[in-house]
Amino acid sequence: MTSTSSRPDADIHALLAAFSACGATAGGGITRLAASPEDGQARDLMRDCLRRLGAEIRIDRVGNLFGLLPLARNPHAPLVMLGSHLDSQTRAGRLDGTYGVAAAILAAETLAREAAAGRPFSADLCVVSWTGEEGARFRPSLLGSGVYAGRRAADDVLALRDEAGITLGAALAAIGYAGADAPPPMPACYLELHVEQGTVLEASGAAIGTVTRNWGAAKLDAVFSGEQAHTGPTPMEDRRDALLGAAYAIADLRALADRFPGRLHSSVGRIEVAPNSANVVPARVAIAAELRSADDALLAEATALAEAAFEAAAARAGVTVAIPSRELRGIRALPGVVSDLVAACAEAEGLACRSLDTVAGHDALSLLDRCPVGLIFVPSLGGLAHNEAEATAPRDLEAGLAVLNRAARRLCRAAGSPEGALRGETA
Amino acid sequence: MTSTSSRPDADIHALLAAFSACGATAGGGITRLAASPEDGQARDLMRDCLRRLGAEIRIDRVGNLFGLLPLARNPHAPLVMLGSHLDSQTRAGRLDGTYGVAAAILAAETLAREAAAGRPFSADLCVVSWTGEEGARFRPSLLGSGVYAGRRAADDVLALRDEAGITLGAALAAIGYAGADAPPPMPACYLELHVEQGTVLEASGAAIGTVTRNWGAAKLDAVFSGEQAHTGPTPMEDRRDALLGAAYAIADLRALADRFPGRLHSSVGRIEVAPNSANVVPARVAIAAELRSADDALLAEATALAEAAFEAAAARAGVTVAIPSRELRGIRALPGVVSDLVAACAEAEGLACRSLDTVAGHDALSLLDRCPVGLIFVPSLGGLAHNEAEATAPRDLEAGLAVLNRAARRLCRAAGSPEGALRGETA
Repeated sequence: MTSTSSRPDADIHALLAAFSACGATAGGGITRLAASPEDGQARDLMRDCLRRLGAEIRIDRVGNLFGLLPLARNPHAPLVMLGSHLDSQTRAGRLDGTYGVAAAILAAETLAREAAAGRPFSADLCVVSWTGEEGARFRPSLLGSGVYAGRRAADDVLALRDEAGITLGAALAAIGYAGADAPPPMPACYLELHVEQGTVLEASGAAIGTVTRNWGAAKLDAVFSGEQAHTGPTPMEDRRDALLGAAYAIADLRALADRFPGRLHSSVGRIEVAPNSANVVPARVAIAAELRSADDALLAEATALAEAAFEAAAARAGVTVAIPSRELRGIRALPGVVSDLVAACAEAEGLACRSLDTVAGHDALSLLDRCPVGLIFVPSLGGLAHNEAEATAPRDLEAGLAVLNRAARRLCRAAGSPEGALRGETA
Repeated sequence: MTSTSSRPDADIHALLAAFSACGATAGGGITRLAASPEDGQARDLMRDCLRRLGAEIRIDRVGNLFGLLPLARNPHAPLVMLGSHLDSQTRAGRLDGTYGVAAAILAAETLAREAAAGRPFSADLCVVSWTGEEGARFRPSLLGSGVYAGRRAADDVLALRDEAGITLGAALAAIGYAGADAPPPMPACYLELHVEQGTVLEASGAAIGTVTRNWGAAKLDAVFSGEQAHTGPTPMEDRRDALLGAAYAIADLRALADRFPGRLHSSVGRIEVAPNSANVVPARVAIAAELRSADDALLAEATALAEAAFEAAAARAGVTVAIPSRELRGIRALPGVVSDLVAACAEAEGLACRSLDTVAGHDALSLLDRCPVGLIFVPSLGGLAHNEAEATAPRDLEAGLAVLNRAARRLCRAAGSPEGALRGETA
């Protein structure tokens, strides 16, 4: 169980470097889409690390990869779960998700070593990487954790198709991760360590963030329908240009966010145009629009305003719009006892900690209401996210691991209870 | 050489129905992208029809398909060429291009029968289908006729790639149309019959249009570059959203056309977004923009205004824009003698004929300045084009063929000279 520098899990930097090689891009980032060969490489690396720790590997139907470590030597011991995801966006950073998985592996190694040395534990540990967090290759996001939490049906998720028409089920089978194992039971507590993807920590000088609330999000798929025509002779007044309608909508959605500075985020990240030919007036355009806010009333108002703006944009272009899919994620508080535990662990490590919101979705939020969850942030340089230049200072990467490690140890010595861990020993 | 109802070339309707089966869509149109298997089927049908006429088949390097019929029985006889294209847009109409090829085949059949019956001719006939007129699968448009006319290099055209990365050369080889034959020499006159794709003929009640001028076009590829970021936590003021810049540009380009009603057409038919993920602020967006006008000064002014609008749109979104490709097609007159010949032939058929502009590009325009060209239009119902519902009345389809046939006969009896044909016999 001792580390040597030749092993990929010698320390957090070595392990991140090893993961970064799976899907490395010329720009210093990674492209590791869910269930791609590159994702398969990263999963293999994780699995091999966990096997070296003596963990029991389980792969469930949707490819969630679990490693169970019996620390408590009691078949009825509760479970503490640590993890995040290994999939990425296209040309993304090396830390998003991967940092949480790598840190979970190293925390597990430390606790396994302590258990082997005789330290008593009252909970077992599980390390997890969830399938398809990003929603890049297979939409929507939070697939694997959503199935585990009972929010999505495994059959539905396995039937999702990428742009080439390949199902998630087939893609998982192709990389050897279409499993048949039962997932572990719901843990007594789930912790996820992640890069902030914002600038709150950097601006405040805190090394650790403990997340107390997630912003709400409204995700709208809007489809503009016009009429296919020749871009040459068709008189302008006869055109029913679906792309023009979508363009008006994209501009108006941005204007909507600008009406509520700092309180409302909006975006259109994805667009599909048919037939998408230079000489053809587009007949059908689908856009994926998002609204995010920490204010429930504002989010509801903005969602209604956005839908009205889409209707007006369509009418202005002489086309129609439908909204075949609306996904609403409410604003919710994360359990205070877990965030207090994180803060206490940061304090014990001598690290400045502050509470903050998460604007982005995370697998931890899938498990919210199913078990106590904690979400721990470290600073992102310049807040860059979903970008190859995403980075965190090495010292901050080590600090986040130290806090995760300490919190996991306290939980595993308190039968997984965050209340017990908060009250209990601080070592 | 006699027609029977069981043959696909029994008449124009039967032949169009046979071509329509190649790439038929559920919506009653066709999808027959250049060098696709469906294009291969249509080419095979054309080749078989020409072989039955005793034509010499030639396929040149870029897949242009020629059938040469020696009518003049003189090895030094000039050539009259008739044709158009068999490729289509996605979910397009059955007539665009195909009508001109089908009518050319039937006109050739008639003239071959007349020659066999002893009628004297002083020019030979050639039927052609040009590769890649549409610019849908392989961009830009007018590929095969552009190579034949010396406007494009064959090597460049063969190296063009579709969205799957397949070159035109490889696609032609896959369907058996990567030829090695020398193309025929430049003809003494080229005639192309086409559906109007506009409403001028329908509104005027004329059955035949003779094209006297083509509109100019400016085709601009504009690339907006921003910065990839997370759509959640990234503060709105920090976003550099390339899709937002493109959306402003699309809206502004439409507004530009609206400033010059009836005199300026504009469009954006194609957009490519990277990384095109719902959760990622787009980093790079390429749009294919077009401006068309019959007024040279206006087209130049509008092109400059469009480029300035793109710059302003980019600046407003905090991104940059580059225009890596500008293609300008000047406004030009078609030779009056050929359009007069078409008008004379229409009159001889007892058909109302009017002269008009073409706004769309056609293969005939590739050959303009290389040889005398004529472009004959028949009405399009409702002006619908690049649309599965594209249609022309059966009577008008027959009228167009009759005019093409008569004009070809007169040309082939006047050594291919449009002046001679116009002066000569009217039978």
